[in-house]
Formats: sequence, structure tokens, C-alpha cells
Amino acid sequence: MSEISAAEVVDALTDALGTDAVVTDPDSLQAYRRDRAEDPDAGTPLAVVRARSTSDVQTAVRIAARAGIAIVPRGAGSGLSGGSTAVDGALVVSLERMRQVTIDPTMQMAVVQPGALNAEVKAAASEHGLWYPPDPSSYEFCSIGGNIATNAGGLCCVKYGVTTDYVLGLTVVLADGRAVTLGGPRLKDVAGLSLTKLFVGSEGTLGIVTEATLRLVPAQRTPTTLVAMFPSVSGAIAAVVDVKSAMRPSMLEFMDRVTINAVEDVTRMQLDRIAEAMLIVQSDEAPEVATAQIEAIEKLCALHGATEVYATSDPDESEALIEARRIAIPCVEKRGALLLEDVGAPLPRLGELLEGVRAIAERRAVEIAVVAHAGDGNTHPLIVFDPADADQKARAEVAFGEVMDLAIALGGTITGEHGVGRLKQPWLADYLGEDVLELNLRIKKALDPQNILNPGAVFGEL
Amino acid sequence: MSEISAAEVVDALTDALGTDAVVTDPDSLQAYRRDRAEDPDAGTPLAVVRARSTSDVQTAVRIAARAGIAIVPRGAGSGLSGGSTAVDGALVVSLERMRQVTIDPTMQMAVVQPGALNAEVKAAASEHGLWYPPDPSSYEFCSIGGNIATNAGGLCCVKYGVTTDYVLGLTVVLADGRAVTLGGPRLKDVAGLSLTKLFVGSEGTLGIVTEATLRLVPAQRTPTTLVAMFPSVSGAIAAVVDVKSAMRPSMLEFMDRVTINAVEDVTRMQLDRIAEAMLIVQSDEAPEVATAQIEAIEKLCALHGATEVYATSDPDESEALIEARRIAIPCVEKRGALLLEDVGAPLPRLGELLEGVRAIAERRAVEIAVVAHAGDGNTHPLIVFDPADADQKARAEVAFGEVMDLAIALGGTITGEHGVGRLKQPWLADYLGEDVLELNLRIKKALDPQNILNPGAVFGEL
Repeated sequence: MSEISAAEVVDALTDALGTDAVVTDPDSLQAYRRDRAEDPDAGTPLAVVRARSTSDVQTAVRIAARAGIAIVPRGAGSGLSGGSTAVDGALVVSLERMRQVTIDPTMQMAVVQPGALNAEVKAAASEHGLWYPPDPSSYEFCSIGGNIATNAGGLCCVKYGVTTDYVLGLTVVLADGRAVTLGGPRLKDVAGLSLTKLFVGSEGTLGIVTEATLRLVPAQRTPTTLVAMFPSVSGAIAAVVDVKSAMRPSMLEFMDRVTINAVEDVTRMQLDRIAEAMLIVQSDEAPEVATAQIEAIEKLCALHGATEVYATSDPDESEALIEARRIAIPCVEKRGALLLEDVGAPLPRLGELLEGVRAIAERRAVEIAVVAHAGDGNTHPLIVFDPADADQKARAEVAFGEVMDLAIALGGTITGEHGVGRLKQPWLADYLGEDVLELNLRIKKALDPQNILNPGAVFGEL
Repeated sequence: MSEISAAEVVDALTDALGTDAVVTDPDSLQAYRRDRAEDPDAGTPLAVVRARSTSDVQTAVRIAARAGIAIVPRGAGSGLSGGSTAVDGALVVSLERMRQVTIDPTMQMAVVQPGALNAEVKAAASEHGLWYPPDPSSYEFCSIGGNIATNAGGLCCVKYGVTTDYVLGLTVVLADGRAVTLGGPRLKDVAGLSLTKLFVGSEGTLGIVTEATLRLVPAQRTPTTLVAMFPSVSGAIAAVVDVKSAMRPSMLEFMDRVTINAVEDVTRMQLDRIAEAMLIVQSDEAPEVATAQIEAIEKLCALHGATEVYATSDPDESEALIEARRIAIPCVEKRGALLLEDVGAPLPRLGELLEGVRAIAERRAVEIAVVAHAGDGNTHPLIVFDPADADQKARAEVAFGEVMDLAIALGGTITGEHGVGRLKQPWLADYLGEDVLELNLRIKKALDPQNILNPGAVFGEL
């Protein structure tokens, strides 16, 4: 469709933005081809624009749109579904240099650029006694722009909700290069459609977020942390359901036996290697309420067969326990290559989901470790395989699809917090159904008629 | 565009739905022409379908779509912006009979039909020790469907957010009569675009909500309530800003002198008639935290000149004080006809907004009473006029627009929680700007190409 050559596009970008902002060196481009999903089908981009401002992003989009070439937006490259996988000949627009964070303590809000890391937003807020809750396990190296693109979750969501619950306003560069400001520093605003929320979770397929206004809350109280070991997965899940029915903990995490052992291999923190399941629960209520909640949780865990229960209010000890959960994926990664799932189920069917995953692992003869944000029904079955073993790799890929099919059958979702990206794209139609997919595509077409924004992600070939 | 006559439409509706579900009697139609906005330009509908199910709504939409006639969705008719004002010859689809509420205590969720009143959802949740926070002052007579259509707010939003923060899933009948289910009973779900959130606040212009899955939270603790009277509006607002900077109260309401007197006229509860402003503040933290917060608020109020400060933990006394706030609009209504504003400003500019409103009242020689959800910067200037005085009415209408212009100039919104409807439609373009309006219209056109869903509302003539 283009009458402009690739070389002319690069010249136009360099002329407009300077050589410093435009990467074309083949070695340097390698670093921009993949995110953490390590998509084997990643292409090689024509160039990378390392934007410094909304205006830089507009310029890049305008030049790409005129030439009809694809644009792949990219934050910190920590995505797990291939949402930032490069497309051959595309322009990668990297937001990594746009990292400003400004806190308004009176408004209890932050104005952030998309390249700022989640941890940087948290740190800036905490200087004012404030807190930005969403906490993906990758919070130290994922960007807030990527969090917004995937409507990222984390560990505290069971009480505090997900990214969209904190996004009040966005500046977005549209497919034609126009920049629009949606919402803003107002807790209530119902003038016009809820476009701010539409862009959250759109994975770069509708526009590129260049600034966000985020709602902050008062600093979290020092939580009390409880760890419980169970001789059966079903006992642990029964405890999860009972805890969730009785109260609203600020964290309710699950690790299965494979994960416990993988973490113990790395940390040597003396986790019980023969336990089938481990729960990590927190309460951040005021002290006497938290004490009562933790006591009630201890009883529920004991009722469902916990062999060991340990509680602590010591911040360092708490942090060490949570860190064991956060590093679970890297620990399991030491056992082989991973296909990383992110499926969810309504809480009452969480047990069925975990049983089904175990059955799939047996049937396909692959190891599947499971970590889960159990309190919100969001699980990460980690399918381990040896990439040198073609047969095992093929079985792992079959299992990957079967886990999603299972989640759909249970009324769950194929992705709770990582996004569809390119890896889960083939399952989206099954999950949404024909009518809802068509509705998605009508919106996509209305906002990006040329299909130049992150083509292939979420919706596949259009 | 239609080749089907009005009589044929009514016949088709009656054949498909039964005479019981189709209202055509001219006297009965009167009750469906207006909502609480009392739009003088309200038309007369061809018929009203009193739907009993999603399927009824689909049937009605299909018949109307085939005939090319407009559809005006309607909940409890409590809207304040004319979002349910009938259009001549339109089909009103009333959801008033769809009132089922089902609570799932394990999931801490409710599945509700749109005609259920907000108070009915709250009551059903409370039977299970749960709470649905959004609390418009009209909660006893507004429907949850209307709340979703306008992304309604209320008094607790300063801490607990607005309707969209509680909507996890929707069943929506689209403009072509198809019904789709978006989202569902999952706290985390990022598969596909955030269409659930797009429909929240769309005021019936994109589809008709026929079921919703709502997130519930544990029952609120008995709050401690503080009332403070101020000799100046600026002192009260300074206290609001200081309180909001220091903590997160669960309510932070404001009434000005005109409102205080209007409420006192009705309630005789011995409010200080010469005070210029009154704040009503609540903390629902655990007892000792709440006590400390209320003490801190007392000090801040005293610092900013409060002449009288009173705190209570007694539930009945608290409720009486809050009720004084909730009935403020009906009390002011006794002084004349009202043009009801719903403008917001970023919190640091709230004082300027209130000063500006006072200047407009003086310039236009009309009385403007102000009640405000001060903690979230959302204000309701109530412009009082004598409908028999044409000149005063004209001045009130000028003031109505000037208040919105002022809010826009201060970086605020023309509507925080009531919706654009038909009354505020002429100001939407000024607020959104050309590009964002165009983006809104692209979505509208993608989902309702015939423009049969609530035409005239939000977007005006298309």
C-alpha cells in the first residue's frame, strides 16, 4: 500500500527526531524483537523510535501511518504474552525513556509517563505517604505503560482491584497521530463515553498511551502475613473459598508442590518439600482487626487440614515470604523452558481448574507447576518443557491450549492479567464467542481502520 | 426510512410480547415521557415495552430496528439530565419489571437485573454481611440499570469509587437485537477489549443493559460522623482540602447557607441558619483509627474557623445527619423550579468553582444553592427560579450554561455523576473538544450505525 520506501521512512524519522532517537543498527534492534514471552516467531523491525515525548510518538505514528507500516508499541519489554513481539518491517515505538512521575498529594494522584516502572511510581507515591496498589510480581522491572496496556493485576488485587481501577485519565496517540486527552484528575466524570477505560487493557491495538493520571490511596498499613502448608490441594482451595467468603484479605496466594520445591531449590528457606500446597495470606487491617482476621484464617486452614501454619507481623519476615511467591516463576524457569499460563475461573470452580490442570499434565506427560492469585481465581500454570525435546515441546503446546479450553469450559478466562498478546490470540475467538469478537473488531476498525497499531496482537490477522 | 407503519409496529410488539407488556394507552404513556429532569421538550412515545427478560428486550429492539424507529431505554425514571426523555414516535423500553437480585456470598458478587433499585441491591447484599457501596442520594428510588447507564456516584465515592468500579460483567442487547455477555464473575479478565467498562456510563446510546454482575465488599463498619459549621465557604473548602490531603474519609459533603436553610425549613433539626457552610464527614475505619481521624478532622475544621463541630458514633444520629444531606435537593426544590447542575473541578480548584458560581448567581440575579460531594470535587449548584417568571427563567438558563463553562475553564467536568442526557448535550462538544468528540462518535457509529439507541441523548442530532 505504501509508495514510500523503508529507507525513506528511516530518513524521515531521523530528520524529524534526530539520530539519537532512531535505532536502526541490526545488533541494537535485536533487543527490541521480543518481550519475556520469547516468541520464536518474532520479526525484525525496520527501526525503533525511542520517544522522549508525546510529540515524538505523534511524529513516529504519522510517518508510519503515511507509509502504511505497522507500529509495535513497547514499554519495558516485560510482557508475558508477546504483546510487544516485533513484526518484520515494523516501527517499534519504545516508551522506555519517558519516565517522569509527578505526585499531587492533595489530589492523591500521580501523573506518570508510560516508561516509568511500576516500582518507581510506588516509590514516588510513598514519599508522600501514598500508595499505588497494583503490584504485578514483575513490579520492579515492568513499566506503568505496559501495566495499563494489559490492565495488569498482581497480588493485592483480591482486595484492591486491578490497574483500570486506578486510571483516571490518559493521553493517547491515535492511529492517525492525533493526541487526545481522556478523563483527567477527577474522581467523577461521566461526560461522554468511558474511553479512558476502553484504552486500558487494549494492548496497544487502539492507541499509544503517553501519559496517565493515576489514583493513589493512603499508604498501606504494615500487613500481618500467614503461611500455611497443606497435604492436599483440595484442602488448600477449600480454605481459600472459606477465607474469601468470610473476609477480604489483602493477599491470598497459592503455590503447589512443584513450585514450593522449585522455590526451595533456590532460596533454601526450609519450605516443607512434601506439602502439596502452600497459602500465603495477608491482612492489612488496623492491628486488632488484622489479629482477629489472621486468627480466623488460622482456624480455617487447620479445619481444612493444614499441617503447619505460621504468622508474622515482622515486615522483613513478611517481605521474605512474599518474595518467595514473587520469584516463583523465575525459580520454576530453572527447570526448563516455560509456557506460562494466566487462566482464571470463578472462585467456586477454582478447585476444578486445578484438578483439570493436573489431569492435563498427566495426560500430556509434562510437568505443570501452579502458582495462583487464588483469592481472585487467577492462576498461572507453568508448563515446563525441554526445548531440545521436540516431542515434549509439542506436548507442552497441546497442554497450553487444553488449559485454556478448560478455563473457558469452567466459565473462566484465558487471561486474567497478562493480556492476549500474540501467544493467546488463537484462543480469543473461542473465549469471546462470535458476537463479542465481532464487537471487539468493530471498535478496532473504528479506531484503527488501517490496522497499523500492533497488528497481529489480540486480534490476529485482520 | 421505514416501510412499516406505526400501527404495524405496535401489532408486531403485541403479537410477540402480549398486550400486558406493551403500553399504548395515551394516559399511561404520560408516565413514561419524562424523568426527574422534567424536560419541557419531551416527546410522546409510540409505545412502551415493559420488558420481563433479556429476550423481551431483544424482541423489542429487533422490531424497532426493522422499522427504523428510535428506542429510549428507561429504568426508574429518576435521571436528572433527561437521559430517559421520550422522543416522539419512539419505543420506550422500560426495565422496571426486571428486578431480580441474586447474591453469591462466596464470590462476594451480585447478579442483578437492571430494574432492581439500588436500595434493593444493598439490602440483598447486607443479608449476607456484604455491601454494594455506590450510593446516589436517590438510592431508594433509582435503579441499578440507570446507575450503570450514568456511571452513578454518590456520597461514599470519595473512598469507595463509582459504579464502574463495581461492574464486572454485563449482558447487553445491541442495536441489532443481539444479546452479548461481556466480562463476568471474575475479578481479573483481560481477554479482549474492556467493553464492559465502555458500556458503563454510555447512557443507553450503545446498547441496553439487561443483567449485571457486581462486585460486593464486606459490610461497612458503623461510621463515626462529624458535622462542622463554618462562617465562610473558603474556610470550609480549605478544611476539605486539608482533610483530603491527610486521610481518606468515607464521606466528605458540603452544603452552603441557602441549602442549610432550605433543609432547616423542612427538618427543624436546629441547623445554624447563619453559617455560610456545613461539612458532613465520616470515617468508617476500625474504632480507634476512626476516633483518631475524627479528632484530626475536628482540629483541621477548628484551624479553618469552624464555629461549631459535633461528632457522633450513634448510628441513628449519624443517619439523621446524612439524611439531611440526602434530602437537600428536594428541600431546595420547595423554593422554586430547579436547574440542577453536576459540575466537578479538580480538588485544589474547588474553591474557585464555588466562588465563580456565587459570582454567576449575583450577575444573573438568581438564587443558586450549592450541595457538593466536596471530597471528590463534585458539586451540585441548584439554580432556583420561578417558572412563571419568564425573565428569571431565561436568566437561570444562562446561569446553567455559565456554570458549565466555568467548570470547563477550571479543568473540571460538566457532569460528574448524573450524565449528559439531553439537558447537558449542548455543552459536550465544548467539554470534550473536537478530537475526543469525534472519537466518541466513531464508537457510537460502530455500535449503532442506524442511531436508533436513545437518539438525541449525549451526542445530540447525528
